[in-house]
Amino acid sequence: MSVEGAGEPVDRSRSVGDVGERRLIVELTRSSRALDATHRTADVVIGSGDDAAVIDTAGPTVISTDTAVAGRHFRFDWSDPRTVGARAVIQSAADIAAMGGRVTGTVVSIACPADTTVGTVLDLNDGILDATHRLGGRVLGGDLVGADEVVLTVTTVGALDGATPIVVGGARPGDVLAVTGTAVGASAAGLALLLDAHDRGNDELLTEFADLVAAHRLPAPDLGQGPAAAHAGAHAMTDISDGLVEELITMAAASGVALAVSSDRIPVGSDMRSAARRLGVDLREWTVAGGEDHELLGAFAAGTVPPGWTTIGEVRDGTGVRVDGRAVQDLRGWQSFGS
Amino acid sequence: MSVEGAGEPVDRSRSVGDVGERRLIVELTRSSRALDATHRTADVVIGSGDDAAVIDTAGPTVISTDTAVAGRHFRFDWSDPRTVGARAVIQSAADIAAMGGRVTGTVVSIACPADTTVGTVLDLNDGILDATHRLGGRVLGGDLVGADEVVLTVTTVGALDGATPIVVGGARPGDVLAVTGTAVGASAAGLALLLDAHDRGNDELLTEFADLVAAHRLPAPDLGQGPAAAHAGAHAMTDISDGLVEELITMAAASGVALAVSSDRIPVGSDMRSAARRLGVDLREWTVAGGEDHELLGAFAAGTVPPGWTTIGEVRDGTGVRVDGRAVQDLRGWQSFGS
Repeated sequence: MSVEGAGEPVDRSRSVGDVGERRLIVELTRSSRALDATHRTADVVIGSGDDAAVIDTAGPTVISTDTAVAGRHFRFDWSDPRTVGARAVIQSAADIAAMGGRVTGTVVSIACPADTTVGTVLDLNDGILDATHRLGGRVLGGDLVGADEVVLTVTTVGALDGATPIVVGGARPGDVLAVTGTAVGASAAGLALLLDAHDRGNDELLTEFADLVAAHRLPAPDLGQGPAAAHAGAHAMTDISDGLVEELITMAAASGVALAVSSDRIPVGSDMRSAARRLGVDLREWTVAGGEDHELLGAFAAGTVPPGWTTIGEVRDGTGVRVDGRAVQDLRGWQSFGS
Repeated sequence: MSVEGAGEPVDRSRSVGDVGERRLIVELTRSSRALDATHRTADVVIGSGDDAAVIDTAGPTVISTDTAVAGRHFRFDWSDPRTVGARAVIQSAADIAAMGGRVTGTVVSIACPADTTVGTVLDLNDGILDATHRLGGRVLGGDLVGADEVVLTVTTVGALDGATPIVVGGARPGDVLAVTGTAVGASAAGLALLLDAHDRGNDELLTEFADLVAAHRLPAPDLGQGPAAAHAGAHAMTDISDGLVEELITMAAASGVALAVSSDRIPVGSDMRSAARRLGVDLREWTVAGGEDHELLGAFAAGTVPPGWTTIGEVRDGTGVRVDGRAVQDLRGWQSFGS
């Protein structure tokens, strides 16, 4: 990477194509370094700006990657770039937490059209930096390339700090199932509200249920519960990204067990109940079928569920998943059962 | 990730949109696991298929990410998907080697249109797997998402095995500059031949200079020279991805030194000389301005250049870069000087 022009600030209203990817990479690296100077962690030997970064955490490294595409996984007319960037980090970081890992760093790829403004890219990057720092990690590098649409890929690395990594396939008959958070399905509720407002051209409910909309734009799972669960000896864990039913089906199949949950034990806020009534939907469409909260689902030996987790069901001999006593094969199966 | 339908093989001629991303992820994970079973490394605690992978190498982790976009960084009408996948890995892995790291693993994001065939995605993945394994690493996970165009992001991690990481900014006056490989600029030569054939509608030279075209489609740098240089005590190192001139300018600025190289010391094959004559171009357009060979550029104390490296110049007090005695400010500056 060349450093020509690194002295002058970049006009945020200019386009990426006009300024050039290389010049903008200099700016992104400068932002990262400036913020990193106030968030130093002992783990980082060499930060962003060289060919590669070097991070030194004792013990194994946990790693996962996640991609979000504009118009498919997020919409710039519904979320500002900072929020989009932060959300991409949380999505990727949740996979680290789901193994019991603590986030140590992220590397980020931003692909964007040439007419994207510099301000949009810098804001995306600020959101990525901020979310990574809030999780205790550092942005370790990235790439910026031209493309026809915005594609964000965040790879997150983490440390286990002596804990055994928790796989999805370790649930045992007799275990209890538990989830983190106080509002599982809030992201799905927020999405439903946004879609409803869009369809009806009426923003009223978005104001009334602003917290749910915010939960969709930027979920805020307590990812520290991942390491907590690992240290508590969780038998199995995953993050709820594709809907609770899908994650249960995956955990049941991978563990060779049957899982049963009661939807009324799933933690929800009173605003979710109100919003479901107002939209005339079954609350379970959000709690059971909804995803993207990135809360954690774990299987624990009875009596070992850590504080901050809510027990929602149990692990049994057999196969398959039961919700409120009814067998479900897949998300579609649950939805047809639910309606 | 759900595992429904994992029993039946997927028809390669069907589209990704038809089969579904989730079903295809199952297939990709199965491919990875099958190949990995024959390439086990002690480093991997948990491979692909869970929320995240876990890798355990003693000491620091080197990490870098790199993105390639169809129509911009590669063309499916010029390269088959296996080659595209392998090239993406080499591009990313070269950054690990440039720090002195040995590749231990990759994680991969594939974004592609719904009408992409399953066969294309499986071939991309096979190329990624094969290249990662050839470098001694394992594919540790990935993501597959829909997009309007193919966007490939490869994040590579590596180990230093006790060596000190080599930054780009460590060159010292009195050092010698050296490069790896026997044909620096071969990728640029191959690209020039492809563009010429495309413009003229004549494939003749592509057959005559098949090795150069192959070097463009899939560069094959000896990335083991990265760790070798680190163990030899290299002072500075980077990979030549953006053209030798650009990398020299970066190294000079980051190190606070002047760099001087002689273009006739840059290692080239006789086929490059022939091809340059046939196309009527200055060979230096490929050796000095060309990039994407992903060979390594290093600065070493005199007398410490390892076998496999060719000395091409020296490090002096001062600033800036000189090629064949002429100062160059940037790639464009060199090109105008060259022509």
